[in-house]
Amino acid sequence: RLTPPQLLALVYLAGILIGTALLHLPGVQRPAANLSSIDLLFTATSSICITGLVVADTGEAFTRLGQIIIITLVQIGGLGILTFSTLFAFLTGRRLNFSERQGLVAQLNALNVGGVMPLLRAILAYTFVTELVGAVLLSLRFVPQYGLGEGLYQAVFHSISAYNNGGFVVLSGGMTPYAADPLVSLTISALVILGGLGFLVQLNYVSHLLQPRRNRLLVYSRLTMLTTSILLVLGTLIILALEWNNSRTLGALSTPGRFLAAFFQSMTPRSGGFSTVNIEAMNTATIFTVIGLMFIGANSGSTGGGIKTSTFAILVGSAWNMVRGRGELIVFRRRVEGENVVRAGSITTLYTLLVATSFFALLATNPKLGFTHLLFETVSAAATVGLSMNTTHLINDPGLLILTALMYLGRIGPLTFAVAFSLRSTQKRNVKYPPERDILVG
Amino acid sequence: RLTPPQLLALVYLAGILIGTALLHLPGVQRPAANLSSIDLLFTATSSICITGLVVADTGEAFTRLGQIIIITLVQIGGLGILTFSTLFAFLTGRRLNFSERQGLVAQLNALNVGGVMPLLRAILAYTFVTELVGAVLLSLRFVPQYGLGEGLYQAVFHSISAYNNGGFVVLSGGMTPYAADPLVSLTISALVILGGLGFLVQLNYVSHLLQPRRNRLLVYSRLTMLTTSILLVLGTLIILALEWNNSRTLGALSTPGRFLAAFFQSMTPRSGGFSTVNIEAMNTATIFTVIGLMFIGANSGSTGGGIKTSTFAILVGSAWNMVRGRGELIVFRRRVEGENVVRAGSITTLYTLLVATSFFALLATNPKLGFTHLLFETVSAAATVGLSMNTTHLINDPGLLILTALMYLGRIGPLTFAVAFSLRSTQKRNVKYPPERDILVG
Ligand SMILES: [K+]
Ligand SMILES: [K+]
Repeated sequence: RLTPPQLLALVYLAGILIGTALLHLPGVQRPAANLSSIDLLFTATSSICITGLVVADTGEAFTRLGQIIIITLVQIGGLGILTFSTLFAFLTGRRLNFSERQGLVAQLNALNVGGVMPLLRAILAYTFVTELVGAVLLSLRFVPQYGLGEGLYQAVFHSISAYNNGGFVVLSGGMTPYAADPLVSLTISALVILGGLGFLVQLNYVSHLLQPRRNRLLVYSRLTMLTTSILLVLGTLIILALEWNNSRTLGALSTPGRFLAAFFQSMTPRSGGFSTVNIEAMNTATIFTVIGLMFIGANSGSTGGGIKTSTFAILVGSAWNMVRGRGELIVFRRRVEGENVVRAGSITTLYTLLVATSFFALLATNPKLGFTHLLFETVSAAATVGLSMNTTHLINDPGLLILTALMYLGRIGPLTFAVAFSLRSTQKRNVKYPPERDILVG
Repeated sequence: RLTPPQLLALVYLAGILIGTALLHLPGVQRPAANLSSIDLLFTATSSICITGLVVADTGEAFTRLGQIIIITLVQIGGLGILTFSTLFAFLTGRRLNFSERQGLVAQLNALNVGGVMPLLRAILAYTFVTELVGAVLLSLRFVPQYGLGEGLYQAVFHSISAYNNGGFVVLSGGMTPYAADPLVSLTISALVILGGLGFLVQLNYVSHLLQPRRNRLLVYSRLTMLTTSILLVLGTLIILALEWNNSRTLGALSTPGRFLAAFFQSMTPRSGGFSTVNIEAMNTATIFTVIGLMFIGANSGSTGGGIKTSTFAILVGSAWNMVRGRGELIVFRRRVEGENVVRAGSITTLYTLLVATSFFALLATNPKLGFTHLLFETVSAAATVGLSMNTTHLINDPGLLILTALMYLGRIGPLTFAVAFSLRSTQKRNVKYPPERDILVG
């Protein structure tokens, strides 16, 4: 009998294998593409784990059939993580006691989706409606540009890719031509942000807006919304300040275009993976900012990755608390249990160790590629972002396998993965050890 | 009335100002050196904060008088931190309750140094004896090489510099000529390692060896010794593997010389700051390893910096604990209090935010200098290591001021500094907030 973390890990592993097999079918890649089996494994993993890193331009290397397989994997990967994480977010990684289960059920009831099947139906419906609206908006630009059939295809493809934080693009020339186009940039941004908020938060806000008295805003929703907003605004300001006069990035655009592109590039590291300017051409300080935003990532229970906004907020809040000499962490007039703080620390530690180990392995196997380029690539894969400093196609096969493993572990979450396959210490501890207060740290 | 953290912060600030004033005296720098006031502020901070980063070769830029001022600042900085941190390690950053105070006193008594003045005398005597032994060993090489007077001077200077993890070198040609010299390399290593263990750990081991029954080994001593050993061995193996054939680093040495140099370069990031090979010529994977080792640093209450080995060990242990689904962290048959885990997380968070912010500022002010070079420099300054990829002299004045602040904050410790100057929340919380269990993290 599988535990939820084991189920999650195995489902995505199966998805990778099936996706790789499908991409090996004839008529999937264009003859000139010449992608190896490792390239296809990488592409399938990038699709099902909704990352968006690519070894070759998706529009050029894959036929229409191949593109449809990829976007289907993205949609399955996105729905899968939304469902799993909403259902099991409270379960993975720690055993819940009875009162905690009650709390979970009460909250789901508060969201008017008590029960598994109603929840699943709600997620499916919500995803479908959001993607439909996104596709309609995008088609307003793409249909005039590409004609009805191709325009609708492009609109649907990129709406799915954006809402699931997929990061795959099949537009010839990528998204760069739309850097100053509010319709495309803002539609994609809205879809990415909604996807990155996660289903619980969205539903909580919608229910609250409809019936404020009946449905209170969860502390979690308010905390993640606040953190997301702060990161968005801060990122936009930093990118504006640093890239304003960089002729290879914002400098080439009109003033409103610069604001739009700065906002877009601040939004996308939270795991969208699309870019409307050449990341590689940015200043190193901007690139470091993007790396930081990718590492923090999006919300728990969303299609985004990273350590998650709530983890980051709790770590910073807890540190600030210690500075102020306060015993308890209070967020929106609620006391955060110490267990949450320890858990946030452990997730960040595991995540950092995973990123550091993979980065080390990538540097050792690809010594000629740049430190910055590979660090960017590593964090992008671990946080399932999909942005690249145009490096992915230069990485050798051992490097691609490292990134493949990293995208998978990043999607599942290193803690969930470790919990899924670690041996539980079944023997009860009968020994009570005396406490040790005086271990100096820092 | 000043609190201990405030006292620590102000004493080192005063040290920096006095040191800077002394270095402005005539006859301190050689005429050709032409160091600006900011250069001298940087040098004084690097000395009193026992970092070892230099804007110019210490032996070439400073006269004998200047060098003596520098090494005196190093000695004062080292003694200061040993005394302060031994006395106040248990006090800084959190209010101790009565039983914790009792525990501290009991442990100091166990080390046979109950009371402030006996402790101070013990530290002074221990430092003097260790540095004397180091100087005698080093003079066996330097006296034949430089003659009696100059040889003894070099021996004393580098013994003080090494035991205090000072990182200053006045040998013409630096330490590189001694890469394969066991006498110099191992003496320097022993001094750096002893200094980086901290006074409590050294005294605990010495007392334990002399009277095993009366003086038990503290959990803290065993934990830090284990972590230090693991990091030393792991670092040596990684450097050996990656640099074996690099003709610009280990590849140029004999086989025993390679082992010796790999050990030396694995030891030095724990905050020695000496190097016997050119760090800049190493592979990027090796450089990343050195950055990681610098970030972890040495022991609490030592002359070293970084987040500290115990902090790192507790974070990793706590994460592993969560993977195994265990509730309590057990180290050497002792239960680590949850407060220690939260504190380790907070210290690491503050430290990471400090390093990230400074790195960002350094990139923004010095956009032409490399990402890797500046990252290395930032971590080296924050962890008061003093290693450099030959970058310091290229950094402009705003950058040097950032690094100056960073060396100071790294020496004091970001948490201690923040605690020292933050407003305590004096108002008692009469409101009890309800707990919030269900904040998703990760
Ligand atoms: K993505
Ligand atoms: K140092």
